[in-house]
Amino acid sequence: MWTDTEMTRRLGIPYPIIQGPFGGGLSSARLLAAVSEAGGLGSFGANNLSADKITQVIDEIRTLTDKPFAINLSIPIEDSERLAINADVIKEVTTLLAPYYNQLGVQFPAVPDRFGQDFDAQMDAILAARPPVFSFVFGIPRTDVLQACRDRGILTCGTATTVDEAVAIDAAGVDFVVASGFEAGGHRGSFLKPAEESLMGTFALVPQVVRRVSIPVIAAGGIADGHGIAAAFALGAKAVQIGTAFLACDESGTEALHRERLFSARAGDTVLSRVFSGRLARGIRNEFIDEMRAHEVQLPQYPVQN
Amino acid sequence: MWTDTEMTRRLGIPYPIIQGPFGGGLSSARLLAAVSEAGGLGSFGANNLSADKITQVIDEIRTLTDKPFAINLSIPIEDSERLAINADVIKEVTTLLAPYYNQLGVQFPAVPDRFGQDFDAQMDAILAARPPVFSFVFGIPRTDVLQACRDRGILTCGTATTVDEAVAIDAAGVDFVVASGFEAGGHRGSFLKPAEESLMGTFALVPQVVRRVSIPVIAAGGIADGHGIAAAFALGAKAVQIGTAFLACDESGTEALHRERLFSARAGDTVLSRVFSGRLARGIRNEFIDEMRAHEVQLPQYPVQN
Repeated sequence: MWTDTEMTRRLGIPYPIIQGPFGGGLSSARLLAAVSEAGGLGSFGANNLSADKITQVIDEIRTLTDKPFAINLSIPIEDSERLAINADVIKEVTTLLAPYYNQLGVQFPAVPDRFGQDFDAQMDAILAARPPVFSFVFGIPRTDVLQACRDRGILTCGTATTVDEAVAIDAAGVDFVVASGFEAGGHRGSFLKPAEESLMGTFALVPQVVRRVSIPVIAAGGIADGHGIAAAFALGAKAVQIGTAFLACDESGTEALHRERLFSARAGDTVLSRVFSGRLARGIRNEFIDEMRAHEVQLPQYPVQN
Repeated sequence: MWTDTEMTRRLGIPYPIIQGPFGGGLSSARLLAAVSEAGGLGSFGANNLSADKITQVIDEIRTLTDKPFAINLSIPIEDSERLAINADVIKEVTTLLAPYYNQLGVQFPAVPDRFGQDFDAQMDAILAARPPVFSFVFGIPRTDVLQACRDRGILTCGTATTVDEAVAIDAAGVDFVVASGFEAGGHRGSFLKPAEESLMGTFALVPQVVRRVSIPVIAAGGIADGHGIAAAFALGAKAVQIGTAFLACDESGTEALHRERLFSARAGDTVLSRVFSGRLARGIRNEFIDEMRAHEVQLPQYPVQN
């Protein structure tokens, strides 16, 4: 029975359906709680939150549900070179972006002292709050972080966009792996090779990952209904992660206009681009993407561009 | 029962498995016959063959099997501008390619009077020989061609890489449509928008096509075993088209070295590129692709580059 799998037993949820974690303020405690109360695993993308804010969000979640849920973080890029704040690059991208800020009447942000949150502080908050599941993208946490999760009974879940990444996640002793195909919305989670060289479709990725890892595989990318869930199981997945479809929910952090654009978007209207955040991500094609594409190579890396 | 579908009944084959047609000399009458004799639908990619040669091949096929089979052609690009032989472009690409011909000790080909075969002559040969199925890529045949097929009891099958292409194929009165996802090997069959803007994964493409067309949908792209077939059916496909996996067969036109590279290739080792033929195609990543990528925009269109 598909609702009684190793995944549902270990996670303590009736249905092997995981809500994909959203960044950019689209995650909400209400959506997470609605999914978990309905028998799936709600997730919250906390990457842009400080440690204090993470503690608050987990407290809020626990007022809304006593069911299992996941908190998701981004693994920082180890190569600090890529994050070096290059004054020339910043100046260049400021010139490129200024017209868009002007058009929208939004003030251009000041260049901060650092880009992104302090991962160790975020992680301390998570370890203290002990959510049932800690999930992550863009890499694999250090051994001591994974051990600290295990010591506290926190299940771990990594994201792979290639077979090699899935094998690395399995070898690190992570509990579950999301095999995230080319179709997936939002950021590509690639970390071993450039995202542009890690573009495998869900149909090709899932069965290859299933054959190569010992841990349960969660299929992600292009799954939005029961047909997709059945297909993912046929390919050997033990659960599915559904992201974009949950943005249709009132409980998500989407605005009405965003929902309208997402769910009236015609097939093929999404593209992969790094113009928004500096990392390759799938989003609805728009003027900004089309116009900035010519400058894609000169844009700073994530999270600077973000 | 998955072996008794509208597809298998109409095609008169026991299993709804279609062998993908190969170009570049990889198709063979032996492989086609082996697939058809085993209960699938063998296909032969005849695009690079003259009308006479097509007649010969179909005769040869009929000495090997009396089971149903398909002959596949490319629909020529209507916009003759794109095919204009531009002397400057030819000179430029000759300079770029010369080192590879030298390295391999192969003589550089003379520039022909025309690129590609005469489609109308090819089509006349097919109409005269009446293969059970005529399949095509890169577009939709003219109304009179489709009508001539219908008049002769030849079933027709088009290839779509987007929902819009599938809808256009359905509207033209074609009998079946292949929904060919991003994962598929070889050429992308895109014809309404540039192939680079028509990159939908099988998992996303198939169910959207199924919802939008009235004719049976054949799933293609990343399918290589029973798991994939079951998944494709879960997504609403009525048959599958499997290409690359059949290149493992001794009966295919592959050399031993090619088979070794194909089936020892590690996951992720394939890429989409237009450097070989001028059209976007998925192949094994190699030095030539990596080196020529920088010149991709200046290469002539298919079939000139081919």
